[in-house]
Amino acid sequence: MAHTHEPHLKMREICRIAARVFYEKGYDGASMQDIADAVGLTKAGLYHHVGSKDRLLSDIMNYGMDILDETVLQKVKDIADPREKLRRTIMGHIDLIVRARDHEITVILHENRSLKGALRKKINARKRQYIDYLEGLIRQVQQESGRPSTSPRLAAFALLGMVNWLYQWFDPKGPIGQEELEEAYVNFFFRALLGET
Amino acid sequence: MAHTHEPHLKMREICRIAARVFYEKGYDGASMQDIADAVGLTKAGLYHHVGSKDRLLSDIMNYGMDILDETVLQKVKDIADPREKLRRTIMGHIDLIVRARDHEITVILHENRSLKGALRKKINARKRQYIDYLEGLIRQVQQESGRPSTSPRLAAFALLGMVNWLYQWFDPKGPIGQEELEEAYVNFFFRALLGET
Repeated sequence: MAHTHEPHLKMREICRIAARVFYEKGYDGASMQDIADAVGLTKAGLYHHVGSKDRLLSDIMNYGMDILDETVLQKVKDIADPREKLRRTIMGHIDLIVRARDHEITVILHENRSLKGALRKKINARKRQYIDYLEGLIRQVQQESGRPSTSPRLAAFALLGMVNWLYQWFDPKGPIGQEELEEAYVNFFFRALLGET
Repeated sequence: MAHTHEPHLKMREICRIAARVFYEKGYDGASMQDIADAVGLTKAGLYHHVGSKDRLLSDIMNYGMDILDETVLQKVKDIADPREKLRRTIMGHIDLIVRARDHEITVILHENRSLKGALRKKINARKRQYIDYLEGLIRQVQQESGRPSTSPRLAAFALLGMVNWLYQWFDPKGPIGQEELEEAYVNFFFRALLGET
């Protein structure tokens, strides 16, 4: 976050509202004035909080990764069984994507074409860390089962694709419930990974 | 396409170049003047060809679906065996996503937040048609194998996620070759679908 002397919650609130504006108008289409209006600050007040437009985008993305850390990874960190840990990670990640509250943030998180230089490197490093975590967990699960059929890295990316793509089509109010979705995806992935029926 | 009396190729050329501009500046950030400059037309000349900015975006998306039709679906349409047909569809779709030539178009294809009303409905109907095709093929493969384990619709979306997400991470010049990728993804998906090892 740009100014750590500001209350944490205020910055998160700005990120959430700004994500909604970027989502609606596009990063390039939204002006800092649009965002200031939505947040209820003057433009100067907004700049005081966020520094610059690309730093704001970077803050939103890092906030998205913070949410992943707090609501998914922290909750599974003490699970010893790799298989259970992976299962709960997948379910947590699905929950993160499909729950309405953070929809705009999870969408914006993947639009890092607009980000350049050091800010882009930083968010990409955090994403890579998560992929490394998934890859390591997948490798453990495969080794335990004695069936290392797919490259753990490819399997990790296949999983990320399945789950992250949900924002494109899954409707929590549609015919498929979230529980059904989570169970089906977990089973689908483990079957792909281990060839178990 | 907006003006069918114009040569087909000219319109495709405009779509390809405009996709690159939208990709770089964002749909909302790119002006029609930017696109006219890139194509080498006056702004009036560009408007003559494409009608409006949102129609141009819609044309790009429909062009993306045309490419899918021509380079993937047309080539597999005479394959009788559902399993082989699905396998070749997956490989063709992967090829479409990872080959550099149409990268911007396949990215733009998924940014239909910017499109409203009838134009949005039309492109969504075409996407739905492709999902229905995948779902039907998956159902056939499952019935033949006697193992209908996952809902064909969920499996179709999982597949789309795996494959479409490639644009976010796969580097054709990276350590994983395209052939290796295609084989791994096809095997991964069939194992998930049928539980075969």
